[in-house]
Amino acid sequence: MPGPRTIRSVDVQRVAAGAVEARADEVAIEEPLEIRISGETLAITMRTPGNDRELVLGFLLAEGVIASARDVASVVHCGRTTDEGRENTIDVTLAPGVRPPIDEETGMLARRGTLVTSACGVCGRRSIDDLLARMTPLPTGGRVSPETVTAAVSGLRERQPLFARTGGCHAASLVAFHGSHVATFEDVGRHNAVDKVVGSRVLANALPLSEHILVVSGRSSFEIVQKAFAAGIPLVASVSAPSSLAVDLARRANVTLVGFVRNGAMAVYASKDRITG
Amino acid sequence: MPGPRTIRSVDVQRVAAGAVEARADEVAIEEPLEIRISGETLAITMRTPGNDRELVLGFLLAEGVIASARDVASVVHCGRTTDEGRENTIDVTLAPGVRPPIDEETGMLARRGTLVTSACGVCGRRSIDDLLARMTPLPTGGRVSPETVTAAVSGLRERQPLFARTGGCHAASLVAFHGSHVATFEDVGRHNAVDKVVGSRVLANALPLSEHILVVSGRSSFEIVQKAFAAGIPLVASVSAPSSLAVDLARRANVTLVGFVRNGAMAVYASKDRITG
Repeated sequence: MPGPRTIRSVDVQRVAAGAVEARADEVAIEEPLEIRISGETLAITMRTPGNDRELVLGFLLAEGVIASARDVASVVHCGRTTDEGRENTIDVTLAPGVRPPIDEETGMLARRGTLVTSACGVCGRRSIDDLLARMTPLPTGGRVSPETVTAAVSGLRERQPLFARTGGCHAASLVAFHGSHVATFEDVGRHNAVDKVVGSRVLANALPLSEHILVVSGRSSFEIVQKAFAAGIPLVASVSAPSSLAVDLARRANVTLVGFVRNGAMAVYASKDRITG
Repeated sequence: MPGPRTIRSVDVQRVAAGAVEARADEVAIEEPLEIRISGETLAITMRTPGNDRELVLGFLLAEGVIASARDVASVVHCGRTTDEGRENTIDVTLAPGVRPPIDEETGMLARRGTLVTSACGVCGRRSIDDLLARMTPLPTGGRVSPETVTAAVSGLRERQPLFARTGGCHAASLVAFHGSHVATFEDVGRHNAVDKVVGSRVLANALPLSEHILVVSGRSSFEIVQKAFAAGIPLVASVSAPSSLAVDLARRANVTLVGFVRNGAMAVYASKDRITG
């Protein structure tokens, strides 16, 4: 069941074969979430309400602000509640000794979108170099069968009740190499769905996520692979295509990247040794 | 034909029916573009190289920084060229008298992601109120047949050579109400594809884009409707679903929002009077 604040009924006009019919339709809820650290804005993301704590923890992990739940003293909604009952501001207090990301230029929080080093001639290689300067490639080891990868991707489709009702949201799943399903979250933003999956494991003190598969419902971009890498997830799988920079990062970070998982077949773009056979 | 720097060949392992076969595959290129105003970073976006000037002009229009090409003195690539020949930094000089977006807190450029007013209890309505405080709803008028909308959406599929080869990118088209195709751009980011479409019309001094349809390849989010609104495009159509906030904004901005354009049918979520029949 989708959460009570994830879906809304709207009136639409259905036009078909020259006839117009008024009816109700369901849409996925999109609302901004303002993420603060000690009261100061870090980021605003458009997300589907629900599991905001997971979203925030996953986001902070991916950005390198925290390494585990121990780095966080509290995560609480603040600010006024909207008329629809949604809470769209969340404040994080970091644990003592954990440094918030500071922009050297301004002395203030380095807001999302500015965390990437801004250097003249910014290029894909530079982006990857920056990441690898603070994170080491994932260790080799752990093997999974193509059948398990296929089942993980197929299983995502069966765990998307919000998509089934709205046709308008993404999802991400975490599945263990031995095949058991760990978590699935849906969101209008693909990156948010991944953050919620990872954040749920941060809350469970279950990092790093070695021997797990991250399944995403859309394409695999650079940022998706980056989030998997930061969480220690060694395999990213999708029914769709990766981008060039996703392939480059996966190869250098030793993340297995699998695309076009369809009809029992798949394409392995990086770190193929984790796939058996 | 996709541009020469939009696509790359990579080695993959194709796994199917227990057999593994090495082969070449094509992926869409994703690279960061740093957008500067007078040398200072405004935003970094992950995009497919090519038509960067269009992307930047469309982006600046959507953010309310410029209203037409006259507000821009120059847009030039700067910084070093990557080994692959790509130029990933672009600098904008605004025309005399045009104010860059300044963050009141820092006195520096208000970088992307911080342009949305950060108020305690940020909510969807607040985001829409902020937009409507600086832009008036689109005028009523202009009518288009369901058949033209269907043809515009079908036509997008036929104008996606990069998608056809990679399976990994989005696209956006502009089609006149009388049916003629104006422009289509592909990009790994859906928002970038829309910015490139709009930016190409900024360059052509063809704003506002009344009596035009914006067709997008994926879902219609708040930001897609916002970009159409800023460009004066009165109709957004897609084969997929809108989000709740996209519907809310479209209704208040008087943008016609059409989803699920499939098999000769469609669902009209907002401002239905522009659809005939």
